[in-house]
Amino acid sequence: MDALRINGERLWAALMELAQIGATAKGGVKRLALTDLDKQGRDLVVGWGREAGMSITIDQIGNVFMRRDGTDNTLPPVMTGSHIDTQPTGGKFDGNYGVLAGLEVVRTLNDLKIKTQAPIEVAFWTNEEGSRFVPVMMGSGVFCGAFSLETAYAAKDTEGKTVGEELARIGYRGDQVPGDHPIGAYFETHIEQGPVLEDADKVIGVVPAVMGLSWYDCVVTGMEAHAGPTPMGLRKDALQVATTIMQEVVAIANRYPPYGRGTVGMVQVFPNSRNVIPGEVKFSIDLRNVNDELLNTMHGEITAFIDATRTGTGLDISLERVSYYPPCPFHPDCVGAVRNATEKLGYSVMDVVSGAGHDAIYAARLAPAGMIFVPCKDGISHNEIEDAKPEHLEAGCNVLLHAMLERAVAV
Amino acid sequence: MDALRINGERLWAALMELAQIGATAKGGVKRLALTDLDKQGRDLVVGWGREAGMSITIDQIGNVFMRRDGTDNTLPPVMTGSHIDTQPTGGKFDGNYGVLAGLEVVRTLNDLKIKTQAPIEVAFWTNEEGSRFVPVMMGSGVFCGAFSLETAYAAKDTEGKTVGEELARIGYRGDQVPGDHPIGAYFETHIEQGPVLEDADKVIGVVPAVMGLSWYDCVVTGMEAHAGPTPMGLRKDALQVATTIMQEVVAIANRYPPYGRGTVGMVQVFPNSRNVIPGEVKFSIDLRNVNDELLNTMHGEITAFIDATRTGTGLDISLERVSYYPPCPFHPDCVGAVRNATEKLGYSVMDVVSGAGHDAIYAARLAPAGMIFVPCKDGISHNEIEDAKPEHLEAGCNVLLHAMLERAVAV
Ligand SMILES: NC(=O)NCCC(=O)O
Ligand SMILES: NC(=O)NCCC(=O)O
Repeated sequence: MDALRINGERLWAALMELAQIGATAKGGVKRLALTDLDKQGRDLVVGWGREAGMSITIDQIGNVFMRRDGTDNTLPPVMTGSHIDTQPTGGKFDGNYGVLAGLEVVRTLNDLKIKTQAPIEVAFWTNEEGSRFVPVMMGSGVFCGAFSLETAYAAKDTEGKTVGEELARIGYRGDQVPGDHPIGAYFETHIEQGPVLEDADKVIGVVPAVMGLSWYDCVVTGMEAHAGPTPMGLRKDALQVATTIMQEVVAIANRYPPYGRGTVGMVQVFPNSRNVIPGEVKFSIDLRNVNDELLNTMHGEITAFIDATRTGTGLDISLERVSYYPPCPFHPDCVGAVRNATEKLGYSVMDVVSGAGHDAIYAARLAPAGMIFVPCKDGISHNEIEDAKPEHLEAGCNVLLHAMLERAVAV
Repeated sequence: MDALRINGERLWAALMELAQIGATAKGGVKRLALTDLDKQGRDLVVGWGREAGMSITIDQIGNVFMRRDGTDNTLPPVMTGSHIDTQPTGGKFDGNYGVLAGLEVVRTLNDLKIKTQAPIEVAFWTNEEGSRFVPVMMGSGVFCGAFSLETAYAAKDTEGKTVGEELARIGYRGDQVPGDHPIGAYFETHIEQGPVLEDADKVIGVVPAVMGLSWYDCVVTGMEAHAGPTPMGLRKDALQVATTIMQEVVAIANRYPPYGRGTVGMVQVFPNSRNVIPGEVKFSIDLRNVNDELLNTMHGEITAFIDATRTGTGLDISLERVSYYPPCPFHPDCVGAVRNATEKLGYSVMDVVSGAGHDAIYAARLAPAGMIFVPCKDGISHNEIEDAKPEHLEAGCNVLLHAMLERAVAV
């Protein structure tokens, strides 16, 4: 059993084939949640699951579970998975790797005719990225009850289309009630999406915890007016006020090293004409920390800064928290299974705190969970040039195989 | 002759009728240059011109000249005019007033069967606003040779459509070579677009000069990366660098009161996703001053700041000047004609430097020119709530009538 290995070439080929759907000129992938391309990607993976003999269940939020029976199907499944939606300028590996690594584990077990006591499941969760629809990690969030199906269905993209409509349109609004689906243990393999493993020249990252996250929408309302005749002192320039807040977001994160993070990723200026003083600026704020107390402190600081700015400028400023989850430490049993598998396989290893949210943190509310990281080039993800080495992806998948077998028990 | 007055109600009715085309829910107008709506607006005004007995000439950049013959047609026409394109969130009066005031002058002369020695012309110039296509004041700019027809034709909107194509599509790419059209004198009536007249409670502004303007496109290139796992110290956040430049634009203007102006009106962030550190930010810069030396100093300061920022951050920053015209003092004869007319009519009056560019500054390169301002509510324009009082619009049009008659000579 210890000599078991997955097929790295087959894993790579599957990744490259899925990456064709929504492929961009710069070598990345743009396959936003619940678009026609997402449907094509889902259909391809579901087809592969069926070919591998798995049965398919789809729940009401569009999460897909592909199941390989165990010898004792009364046991809850040992599950792995991730997501196949991407960022607008996304890469080939983020999410997709976690799903296809799970598929590769099943294909390997099939090849070798290995049965497991507990069933094995490969899941992909709806709208993990959160770029088209907020909240982020929507499918796993609804599954674990972090927010309701109704909230998720009502979420709108910038064109006003809702999750509920779009799920139905692409044919992935299933029957199963989200969460009505037992899990024995959950593992997720993922590229690190940061530079730590590469810097330290390690192959496997054992993930003790994921940072907590607070997302906000901030709207500054001034008064649009002509850029020429309006004297500087009489302006209500929404952009000038917004830029001070944008700089404070970064300043706050810098006050809480090493795990403080602060980012403004999305900005919309109205009316966005070069000779009109902006009357309204809308932007996103992303704050993170691995320590919930510090994350709360950061929340307090941005709130206080905005209150002071409102008073100081007289402009209307609204701040709405649109997503929040606390830091998530993983279960010792699953972290241990990953550590054991890595040692057995002899890969170089280190602990890496995850700065990115993952479906695993919601799965962790229902079952013991753990994650396996592999390096990605220059730590870059959410970028079309995201890249990872075949041998690292293969190594991570081998660790997944052995960690899952520790929990599912080969017979 | 001194008792002559235009018909204020008819002027107001024409303004309200034209404002229906592209009317917005908030009471403004959105009729961007060379759109279908612009064509509808043009057709309406040209129809009115024909009804008033005027002949129509269209030049290759789509400028329209509506002519009422004089008794001596060898004399160059006394021209008035402005533009009928609007901002994306524009009002009913900006530009439109200048064109319809000219029409009202002709209608009045027709009513009273008054002939003039020199012909009278009412012009409307293509794409004055510059919001859909740069450069701003395109039609009058090509007309006076400030830039070439080819440059103008090649200008693209954000969807990649060109001025040349769009002019042809809406049927306003005429035959006359731009500039091949004599002008004896040029007057333009306009709402002030600033708060000065209203604050001082004056009805007529005599405009001694228009501020010079420099427009730039600035692009900051960083590296997009994931907002969670990327440590603060390893980021190349294009937005954080861009915001320091945006603040400097305003700081520079504040160093040169009372006529320094600095505005960032347009911003685009790539990829514009809330959990992606921005890899590229593109934004506009608008600097103005009534003193060309100070405008040059301001230009030097933004250039130096950007050079220092490039060195300091290591990020790639490009700055391209996309429009420039120097401050424009108007001709004493035309300024005098406006002053005389105002005195004769007994309106309260003051001098107001124009912060906004107008087609008159390009006309001023070919003939003596002058402008007449009337107050607008709260000094607001480039905004759907732009407003002006019927009696002020009527007063400005009466001043126009008398100023034009001083030059065209009633017979
Ligand atoms: N892994 C990942 O990119 N998740 C998206 C949520 C986040 O921004 O952390
Ligand atoms: N009058 C006017 O709005 N002109 C547009 C050019 C400028 O921005 O000054």
